[in-house]
Amino acid sequence: MKKRSKKVGLGPGSLVHIGNTYVENSKITLVRYDEDSLVEKEIKSAADLREEKDRPGILWINIDGLQDVHLLEEIGMIFGLHPLILEDILSTDQRPRAEDYNDYIFIVLKHIHNHVDQSFHAEQISIVLGKNFVLSFQEKEAALFDPIRERLRSVKGRIRKAGADYLAHHLMDSIVDQYFVVLEDIEEKIEQLDNDLVRDPTPARLHTIHQLKRELIVLRKSLWPLRDAIGLLQRSDSPLIIDSDLIYFKDISDHIIAIIDTVDTFREMLASMLDIYLSSVSMKLNEIMKVLTIIATIFMPLTFLAGVYGMNFKYMPELEWPWGYFGILTVMLVIALGMILFFRRKKWI
Amino acid sequence: MKKRSKKVGLGPGSLVHIGNTYVENSKITLVRYDEDSLVEKEIKSAADLREEKDRPGILWINIDGLQDVHLLEEIGMIFGLHPLILEDILSTDQRPRAEDYNDYIFIVLKHIHNHVDQSFHAEQISIVLGKNFVLSFQEKEAALFDPIRERLRSVKGRIRKAGADYLAHHLMDSIVDQYFVVLEDIEEKIEQLDNDLVRDPTPARLHTIHQLKRELIVLRKSLWPLRDAIGLLQRSDSPLIIDSDLIYFKDISDHIIAIIDTVDTFREMLASMLDIYLSSVSMKLNEIMKVLTIIATIFMPLTFLAGVYGMNFKYMPELEWPWGYFGILTVMLVIALGMILFFRRKKWI
Amino acid sequence: MKKRSKKVGLGPGSLVHIGNTYVENSKITLVRYDEDSLVEKEIKSAADLREEKDRPGILWINIDGLQDVHLLEEIGMIFGLHPLILEDILSTDQRPRAEDYNDYIFIVLKHIHNHVDQSFHAEQISIVLGKNFVLSFQEKEAALFDPIRERLRSVKGRIRKAGADYLAHHLMDSIVDQYFVVLEDIEEKIEQLDNDLVRDPTPARLHTIHQLKRELIVLRKSLWPLRDAIGLLQRSDSPLIIDSDLIYFKDISDHIIAIIDTVDTFREMLASMLDIYLSSVSMKLNEIMKVLTIIATIFMPLTFLAGVYGMNFKYMPELEWPWGYFGILTVMLVIALGMILFFRRKKWI
Amino acid sequence: MKKRSKKVGLGPGSLVHIGNTYVENSKITLVRYDEDSLVEKEIKSAADLREEKDRPGILWINIDGLQDVHLLEEIGMIFGLHPLILEDILSTDQRPRAEDYNDYIFIVLKHIHNHVDQSFHAEQISIVLGKNFVLSFQEKEAALFDPIRERLRSVKGRIRKAGADYLAHHLMDSIVDQYFVVLEDIEEKIEQLDNDLVRDPTPARLHTIHQLKRELIVLRKSLWPLRDAIGLLQRSDSPLIIDSDLIYFKDISDHIIAIIDTVDTFREMLASMLDIYLSSVSMKLNEIMKVLTIIATIFMPLTFLAGVYGMNFKYMPELEWPWGYFGILTVMLVIALGMILFFRRKKWI
Amino acid sequence: MKKRSKKVGLGPGSLVHIGNTYVENSKITLVRYDEDSLVEKEIKSAADLREEKDRPGILWINIDGLQDVHLLEEIGMIFGLHPLILEDILSTDQRPRAEDYNDYIFIVLKHIHNHVDQSFHAEQISIVLGKNFVLSFQEKEAALFDPIRERLRSVKGRIRKAGADYLAHHLMDSIVDQYFVVLEDIEEKIEQLDNDLVRDPTPARLHTIHQLKRELIVLRKSLWPLRDAIGLLQRSDSPLIIDSDLIYFKDISDHIIAIIDTVDTFREMLASMLDIYLSSVSMKLNEIMKVLTIIATIFMPLTFLAGVYGMNFKYMPELEWPWGYFGILTVMLVIALGMILFFRRKKWI
Repeated sequence: MKKRSKKVGLGPGSLVHIGNTYVENSKITLVRYDEDSLVEKEIKSAADLREEKDRPGILWINIDGLQDVHLLEEIGMIFGLHPLILEDILSTDQRPRAEDYNDYIFIVLKHIHNHVDQSFHAEQISIVLGKNFVLSFQEKEAALFDPIRERLRSVKGRIRKAGADYLAHHLMDSIVDQYFVVLEDIEEKIEQLDNDLVRDPTPARLHTIHQLKRELIVLRKSLWPLRDAIGLLQRSDSPLIIDSDLIYFKDISDHIIAIIDTVDTFREMLASMLDIYLSSVSMKLNEIMKVLTIIATIFMPLTFLAGVYGMNFKYMPELEWPWGYFGILTVMLVIALGMILFFRRKKWI
Repeated sequence: MKKRSKKVGLGPGSLVHIGNTYVENSKITLVRYDEDSLVEKEIKSAADLREEKDRPGILWINIDGLQDVHLLEEIGMIFGLHPLILEDILSTDQRPRAEDYNDYIFIVLKHIHNHVDQSFHAEQISIVLGKNFVLSFQEKEAALFDPIRERLRSVKGRIRKAGADYLAHHLMDSIVDQYFVVLEDIEEKIEQLDNDLVRDPTPARLHTIHQLKRELIVLRKSLWPLRDAIGLLQRSDSPLIIDSDLIYFKDISDHIIAIIDTVDTFREMLASMLDIYLSSVSMKLNEIMKVLTIIATIFMPLTFLAGVYGMNFKYMPELEWPWGYFGILTVMLVIALGMILFFRRKKWI
Repeated sequence: MKKRSKKVGLGPGSLVHIGNTYVENSKITLVRYDEDSLVEKEIKSAADLREEKDRPGILWINIDGLQDVHLLEEIGMIFGLHPLILEDILSTDQRPRAEDYNDYIFIVLKHIHNHVDQSFHAEQISIVLGKNFVLSFQEKEAALFDPIRERLRSVKGRIRKAGADYLAHHLMDSIVDQYFVVLEDIEEKIEQLDNDLVRDPTPARLHTIHQLKRELIVLRKSLWPLRDAIGLLQRSDSPLIIDSDLIYFKDISDHIIAIIDTVDTFREMLASMLDIYLSSVSMKLNEIMKVLTIIATIFMPLTFLAGVYGMNFKYMPELEWPWGYFGILTVMLVIALGMILFFRRKKWI
Repeated sequence: MKKRSKKVGLGPGSLVHIGNTYVENSKITLVRYDEDSLVEKEIKSAADLREEKDRPGILWINIDGLQDVHLLEEIGMIFGLHPLILEDILSTDQRPRAEDYNDYIFIVLKHIHNHVDQSFHAEQISIVLGKNFVLSFQEKEAALFDPIRERLRSVKGRIRKAGADYLAHHLMDSIVDQYFVVLEDIEEKIEQLDNDLVRDPTPARLHTIHQLKRELIVLRKSLWPLRDAIGLLQRSDSPLIIDSDLIYFKDISDHIIAIIDTVDTFREMLASMLDIYLSSVSMKLNEIMKVLTIIATIFMPLTFLAGVYGMNFKYMPELEWPWGYFGILTVMLVIALGMILFFRRKKWI
Repeated sequence: MKKRSKKVGLGPGSLVHIGNTYVENSKITLVRYDEDSLVEKEIKSAADLREEKDRPGILWINIDGLQDVHLLEEIGMIFGLHPLILEDILSTDQRPRAEDYNDYIFIVLKHIHNHVDQSFHAEQISIVLGKNFVLSFQEKEAALFDPIRERLRSVKGRIRKAGADYLAHHLMDSIVDQYFVVLEDIEEKIEQLDNDLVRDPTPARLHTIHQLKRELIVLRKSLWPLRDAIGLLQRSDSPLIIDSDLIYFKDISDHIIAIIDTVDTFREMLASMLDIYLSSVSMKLNEIMKVLTIIATIFMPLTFLAGVYGMNFKYMPELEWPWGYFGILTVMLVIALGMILFFRRKKWI
């Protein structure tokens, strides 16, 4: 949980950046394209955006870095964004969701990607889809959208001919695809764990199970609202999304359902592994107790017998018998063998 | 559960104060404002309210302390409140909810705040939103609404220009924001616990887990009806809420969903920690049993051997052998080492 | 489960009394009132009812004791009740429910009250709300409705001016209020148990937990259909319920939801207490094992050493040493202290 | 699961009998009645049915034994049944359900009855309700419908005056009533078990718990679709069911809900009993461990002391003391008593 | 999870084969039939399909092997399939589903069949139902559809007279029927396990339980979307499905519900078996502990006594008594018998 509490007492629509600052300066990149032409450039100030807005073609503005509250405010003014939207773009603890503001559609997504420290990392990406323009806001610079830029540069391909909604779809699609990468990574860990668990059930394995479980919980929490958000777009009757493109949003929706299915399967596998772990621990206790019991049950009677003939009574006839010692050793052997037979029958040995 | 049973046998609409009495005298504060002017004053008796009611501008009456049943009754009469509403304001064990009575909307909320004794405290706040007036009823005086008063005093800002519904939204928003503060406190405790659990799993930790679990259950129980209540306002078609303000109620709704999400995540983390605790306890039992078994398994055979040669048989040839004693010590050493090797192979040591 | 099977093979609408017989003779009390007058009398036979039925004013007939199948049949004929309703009034294993038969509304409720034997007792009360009359059927005479009779006797008060539906509401309200009393009793037991559990976790506590759990299950089972039944009345468009009275049924509905909430909270608290109980039992096992292990681990090596020097070998040089005995005692002491240090480091002591 | 796989590869509507064959020859009994007359006879061949079909009055054909696929086919042709219906009548692994085919309503039910081998037995009964006729198909001859035949024979009684739907209702009602008998049997077993569990928790009890649990699962699985089926009839607008009879189907529906409620209560009681069983097993382990620990803790130090004075050192001054022996016995007694006191304080004894 | 990640970065509608390649060359078989004629042939290239498409009669094209992306693309062009459909046919990790594209209905199913390695295998089969044509895509050649070919070859039978939708129904029906075969196999394993568990609860049994549980989870995951898909067809108002055939899709739907029911019953039986396994393991621990405790409790006091009379004190009067030795043996016997009696009373022996 990021520090929401620093906004307590402020009115709604107050612009405060909640989240980590990854880059020093926000970077604004602009792509303008239609079927025939493509312009790519980096924008230095919000003022430059104002004049770009009304030119013909489809405009894609990507902002990397959200710490510059003033810049966001200016962009909001230029594109006529509601203060609550700006507030949500800045608060990087939003749940994925989509909202139709008539003039534009506001979409919040989580970009999940693997991290060095074993666990994955979630970055918030906000998309505003307007008439002929798409705004995308990222917490930091990332290569995520590079394949889309590449596809835009190629003249052939549907994307140059299609509208702003098709570009927005591509952005969302590339974000959702990242889930598959993270899931394959988790799958690998689960398979590794499954093998290790059988060989050697240590407490560290338990810890890994719980860590994976927690990761899947976090993933799942972001997937359900994501599904609702895409579902809203897919059933949208907004003029901003062309009817023949709705099927592409349905396609994303199908991907998300497949991802949720996989996450659920993983959770059930982990639950099953936890069961196996716990039962193997109690199996181990049983094994320890068996060893203890076998040793104690064999040696206690023998030690008792040895103790009896170690007594110092004056009159103990057996002690005088010449074959007494070997006799008692034989008796002990018989007792020990009897015990062993008893354990065999109980299937303890 | 507060003592509901003291109302058993009374008819519906009977005014009885259920809850704790925190203040000696109820305190009534009045704020009247429009775009140009602001009046703040303290009201001594309900009679003064009657004449205030019909003056122009937006009226906000805040009552701290609910034990004065007669006062509530008078206020109810002045503002035309239904007896069941008054009954609910007085019964501080209400679930959060919102109800549209056409002439006014009645909203019950819980103000959650941290308490000295580790746990949090829930105070009931009732809000009545009417045409041009807002009534708020608190169990005791609190600084909760002070930032709103401050914002009202400032001439600029949307709140002075907006209607009574926008003020009511501010009141609710500031109540909901308090949940974030409580949750951050709980998060801290969970993180602390998570570290401690690995280091030292004592029964006290278990107790803390269960206490936190119980707190989250209580929180969750108040959050779901709260969500429904705000959802009702958000989808309301009451003329008391201006259409362009509906988005602000949706904003509160989003906050509550985020809070519920966090509570659910915490609950799942606690469930996970309980698992770890229980398994670390059984691990500890295993460790204890291992030590016992190792000691018993090594010393029992040795003690038996010592016992054998402590027997007093007349004819025991080994006793006569000059190297008998050292021989048997060697045999014992070999047995002990064998046992230790056996445990090594079983990975017990 | 009461003996339903004794009706197997009979057709629907067959009148058979299922349940306990508490009173020898059914007792019929009649109250007739309007704004100006009130008549209360005891009726001896069903025939007397026939003439009472069509007089002006609102008629409330209360029947205590259901074993007189013939009487019920006559009442049914007089008020035009469907045979299935009579069957349900007689079968005291009905779930709470409400049914609109156009000419009258049939409502079944459970009157829950504390019982001497620690657990609570559920009695079925059926209410038939018709145009200008209310019939109430109880399994036995009870003081439950006395406050309502009292309120009827007083000239002022809404109840004398209102219709039959308002009287029916009062009856239901007084039945629902009894749940609060039972819940407060259960709450007390839970709190008592919570304290005792920490002090002394005996199997008897477990038994109490399970008994309380079972009681809450039974309560919950009757509450959900009750909620549906009241909900049906609250949303009813029957002319038998005046529109302005619907809010009073909503009020009962709110009470039931609050009761369900409380029951759920209690169930979760009991689940939590069960966890604590089980873990304290396994804690105790650990403690026992620790004591055993400490004792065994200290004394086994010492006993072995004593055994060694109890052997009767001819040549055992240590036995001859003058300080041998005290030396070995010192060695034993060192071993014992070492062991104790080892356990200290493991935090077992 | 009956052998469904023998139909794999066959097209839909292929008539194959799936289930056990209980009777050698199918038996067809015919009842034709109206308000004034009643004819009962046994039919030998399907051909005889053809002429019976169009006579006036209400016709009830009951078929016992389903193995005669050809007979079923002929009946299907005479009454115009869809091949899929015939297929379902023959496959005795159908879930309870009702289907409206416009010309007739097809209903599948399970007749549950107690069996000698402790568990209950489920037989499939299919009912086809057409205009003026009812067909009922049973796997074997049973006395189940005898009370209905008896009631038909009596001239008075609603059944002779009512339509085919009322007869179908009676058939279904008598099937549903059997559930109560089975449930009372299960209740008895549960109560027996509850008493035994406290006295003597053996593994056999656990087995009984699980067996009962499994039976309840099977019951429940058949009850939910049954409820849906009856619900469909109850809300049906088919002309085959007279409006004033709908309430009788609602009555069956209420019975099923009561049965489901009881099954759920039993399941929760069994879950609770499983908890008690498991905790009593672990209690027993604790008790065993306590005995072991007490014995070991008392005798180990004493045995050690005895061992010390059994050593053969030359110089052991205590051995020479005249009161040495009695002194050491006293020391041992003191140690033993100290231990016992220690256990008393720990509440182990 | 098949390697979805290799499609990351590609736009939607990119044709990539995801899944295993079972056959070297795709095999295309064509069946064209009407009431009077039937043509079966193998097609070598997509070009041949183009001319076949518009001939009269109903056309069924079956493609075995999906690795030939180019071929699929050509078929897609000929029959006018949307690129997203082709993408889904190629990605063999799709969930079962049905989609109405107006001109055709696209259906994805999983063909489940038993495999040599104990577990079952799922193959994706896609079906496109158009006006007068059916396309079916299989991952590899299989005998699954052979009975349908056989039925087509026979002149009599409804299938030759019915439309393309009835053929599609047959394809789906034969796929769903395979589930029954797999379930009967699982049922056999569960019954085997149930018997073995009582006789000999080894960790291998636990492993089998978990493996079966996992298989059922996988089955269930494919069944729910399958049910939704068929449900969509069953309620479809597409002109591609003739109204009188809807009942056949309902029939499949009923089969799927029966399958889901069986899977759920199996899951509950496995859960129950897991409980029995775990409790039998802890029973075993109790038994082991009992043996240990009995042995220790009998021999510890005896060994102590022997130790006492093995002490070397000068003055130990008992040692001098002529009947001392036999006396102490008797005492030991009495103690041992007393212990045994004690255990009898505790029901340990």
